[in-house]
Amino acid sequence: MADKAQLQEAIKTQGEVVRKLKSEKASKEQIDEEVAKLLQFKAQLGGDEGKHVFVLKTAKGTRDYNPKQMAIREKVFNIIISCFKRHGAETIDTPVFELKETLTGKYGEDSKLIYDLKDQGGELLSLRYDLTVPFARYLAMNKITNIKRYHIAKVYRRDNPAMTRGRYREFYQCDFDIAGQYDAMIPDAECLKIVYEILNELDLGDFHIKVNDRRILDGMFAVCGVPDEKFRTICSTVDKLDKMAWEDVKKEMVNEKGLSEDVANRIGEYVSMQGGQDLAEQLLQDPKLSQNKQACAGLTDMKLLFSYLELFQVTDKVVFDLSLARGLDYYTGVIYEAILSQTIPAPAEQNGADEAAVSVGSVAGGGRYDGLVGMFDPKGRKVPCVGVSIGIERIFSIMEQKAETSSEKVRTTETQVLVASAQKNLLEERLKLTSELWNTGIKAEVLYKKNPKLLSQLQHCEETGIPLVAILGEQELKDGVVKLRNVASREEVDVPRADLVDEIKKRTL
Amino acid sequence: MADKAQLQEAIKTQGEVVRKLKSEKASKEQIDEEVAKLLQFKAQLGGDEGKHVFVLKTAKGTRDYNPKQMAIREKVFNIIISCFKRHGAETIDTPVFELKETLTGKYGEDSKLIYDLKDQGGELLSLRYDLTVPFARYLAMNKITNIKRYHIAKVYRRDNPAMTRGRYREFYQCDFDIAGQYDAMIPDAECLKIVYEILNELDLGDFHIKVNDRRILDGMFAVCGVPDEKFRTICSTVDKLDKMAWEDVKKEMVNEKGLSEDVANRIGEYVSMQGGQDLAEQLLQDPKLSQNKQACAGLTDMKLLFSYLELFQVTDKVVFDLSLARGLDYYTGVIYEAILSQTIPAPAEQNGADEAAVSVGSVAGGGRYDGLVGMFDPKGRKVPCVGVSIGIERIFSIMEQKAETSSEKVRTTETQVLVASAQKNLLEERLKLTSELWNTGIKAEVLYKKNPKLLSQLQHCEETGIPLVAILGEQELKDGVVKLRNVASREEVDVPRADLVDEIKKRTL
Repeated sequence: MADKAQLQEAIKTQGEVVRKLKSEKASKEQIDEEVAKLLQFKAQLGGDEGKHVFVLKTAKGTRDYNPKQMAIREKVFNIIISCFKRHGAETIDTPVFELKETLTGKYGEDSKLIYDLKDQGGELLSLRYDLTVPFARYLAMNKITNIKRYHIAKVYRRDNPAMTRGRYREFYQCDFDIAGQYDAMIPDAECLKIVYEILNELDLGDFHIKVNDRRILDGMFAVCGVPDEKFRTICSTVDKLDKMAWEDVKKEMVNEKGLSEDVANRIGEYVSMQGGQDLAEQLLQDPKLSQNKQACAGLTDMKLLFSYLELFQVTDKVVFDLSLARGLDYYTGVIYEAILSQTIPAPAEQNGADEAAVSVGSVAGGGRYDGLVGMFDPKGRKVPCVGVSIGIERIFSIMEQKAETSSEKVRTTETQVLVASAQKNLLEERLKLTSELWNTGIKAEVLYKKNPKLLSQLQHCEETGIPLVAILGEQELKDGVVKLRNVASREEVDVPRADLVDEIKKRTL
Repeated sequence: MADKAQLQEAIKTQGEVVRKLKSEKASKEQIDEEVAKLLQFKAQLGGDEGKHVFVLKTAKGTRDYNPKQMAIREKVFNIIISCFKRHGAETIDTPVFELKETLTGKYGEDSKLIYDLKDQGGELLSLRYDLTVPFARYLAMNKITNIKRYHIAKVYRRDNPAMTRGRYREFYQCDFDIAGQYDAMIPDAECLKIVYEILNELDLGDFHIKVNDRRILDGMFAVCGVPDEKFRTICSTVDKLDKMAWEDVKKEMVNEKGLSEDVANRIGEYVSMQGGQDLAEQLLQDPKLSQNKQACAGLTDMKLLFSYLELFQVTDKVVFDLSLARGLDYYTGVIYEAILSQTIPAPAEQNGADEAAVSVGSVAGGGRYDGLVGMFDPKGRKVPCVGVSIGIERIFSIMEQKAETSSEKVRTTETQVLVASAQKNLLEERLKLTSELWNTGIKAEVLYKKNPKLLSQLQHCEETGIPLVAILGEQELKDGVVKLRNVASREEVDVPRADLVDEIKKRTL
């Protein structure tokens, strides 16, 4: 525990920080953050003196999941995991933190968003930023050269949260990856098939999947006259085309990144192109691109990819789009991103006018990264990989909104029957019957009251969606029966105690 | 990224730390830790210079789960979650980190084991230490006064890991808790019923559940003459009775904690007592204990608890044991701990002689904590809670060892059929059929090779336990059939393509 004098000093300093920010009219968010910190110091001090000055909240950019959200989350996970298993995937898990240096140099400009742990003696640690780098570390460490695995877990980014749009600092990723030296584009095609299947089954409305290739982008930059050392930064700028108009992207290229107007215009021509296998064929004939080895390799693979997508019957949703760039450094070949067509209305009370209607945008993305595992291998041995990450938080947001507007109630338990009684002094009989039901696998509840009213027992069923009530009374006990009541229809029927389990099973199939 | 000069300075300092430790003959563990830190600094610097000096490991006290371990983990979770659902529980989730001050003052001496995040601007955060405190924070924050919920998630403790005994710094907890103002001991009895059901179903061999009550302990300390302010620290000492002999515990009480010999001896008499409902009745007649209000309340509830446990048919495994103490500060009433009877042989190569055979010990524990939620409520409103935490990592360890010695192979995928071919140039046909199977929900794989050998396709099935192979050839395509092969029996039969899905389903029920 921190020393008292130290804390008082910290409170004084922090108080000055807050006053300064207020006098400078800093953003509300910035001030709030520093105030929260001040309150934390005060609470720590207060705790010592027996006072309670609690800040009752979750950390910035994080949230609890309540039972209803968990029920929706479980449903979404089941659909996704079923798909991964249908494709023969295994699963692994890795720790939530890694050695800091495992993450170093993998995320380019985004590295500043990594959460570090405090140095409390021992190793320097960071929270994982994605599941891909830990996967590559896992493969190198265990010398695994081929695997098809999925991994569903939370990752951490100190980003500016936009929680109404499903953007958090702690969020789930659902990753599916295929590692191994295989014939070209077969695993890549399977990843796209998986995205297609999952988005179809989740029933989120229309979508399309953009596909491009790092080699095509690099070739394009080369033939347009972008200097080698600017490939990655220009790539980041192109990546903004899904949120910005071409004119603004061009401005950034010319004014900030120092490209000439001509070079930018040439890029502009290419990145407006969209198509399918035909576009790949057309570009293979392009007088400039066809001279670039990288571009040709990418375009030839793109043609092959589309031929496999045809066999998988998914070409109706896949578009070869030269504007797709994706920010991460480690991609080496094909890249893709799935985009929902619908926009979702943002909850009014939480949003300024500028966020009145929000495009959900990208819900899945991935690509080929043949060099990443080699970065971890002491001898630099490469393991080619291709994978996809499902943007599950955005999907949760949509599903939650669908549940809100739907008339069907989301159940948060699976209880089949409540063991109840209308008369007093039957607690022991209720507990005994409940225990009997548990022992046969029936999902059963009993109220933790000695003498609950029948009405409150029925109300519990209505509120939580329990379909059946098993009612015990003196007469039923004497007759060796249980009164089984259907909550919805209010029908009641006496069932011999020996038949009760079968009867409940039959009625709650 | 850290500044180069800064890093070089850090390497120099750290080098001295290591040299000093070595010259002082510090423990191997301590030296290893500081060396790892030195290597990390060097790697960070090396990275800048294009060198790779990677430390290829997971953080201390953590581990990856490989696919086989995940398959076992999934099986264990399924049993536990089924039980929680059978008892009508909902589930929630909370973030992996909390405001630091949410955790402050909840764990007594163990607070030093909390992982803090680095102050990167913004709030001060810590990784959760258990699931109980976040649960209490959740209840207070959302003003929830009753809920029955389970929560399965990882928690973090900077403890001395003993990984061969299933003790990690990152580990799962499986918590089930009932919050709400109810009639005495009914929810408490359900928690014990749940522990009983889970340990039975996991089939881990014989076990017993020790039960005691904080109020009985406190009453016992009072009548033995322990000063009030020493109750908690003496409680911690009593808690060591499962690992230490009474003589050693007594020594600690007298020599370290300053009790008189007489007081210690009186405690010694009580803590040797074990029994059931009869012992509770006997102690209610005890001339000293019966004069203590706290003890009487605890003993009366213990009697009631056993009457409910009788109805639940679990008294064969439950023992009222006055030596059970449990360290955590927040318990206020009944406490319990489940212990496996078997010892597991430790893997020889990883252990010194002193760990040759390891008692698995406690695999579940919990109790009543009626004050914790009130610590978070601004107005101090209390929500009584009782719960249990299943020590899942130890259970994983046992299950893994059982799997090692079992002849049955653990499958890590659920693939029903491999689509294969004996002839060349049939990749497209294989992909088409695989896609058809996926679309009907069949779990199918296909090798990512243009022309794989039949033998390597069959080998893949043998290795991963795929039971069926669907073989395509020119003749089969012409005849509109698929050759379906049973991998184990090597039987082959031609199945009309239209019947293939039904046939696969029938054979892989």
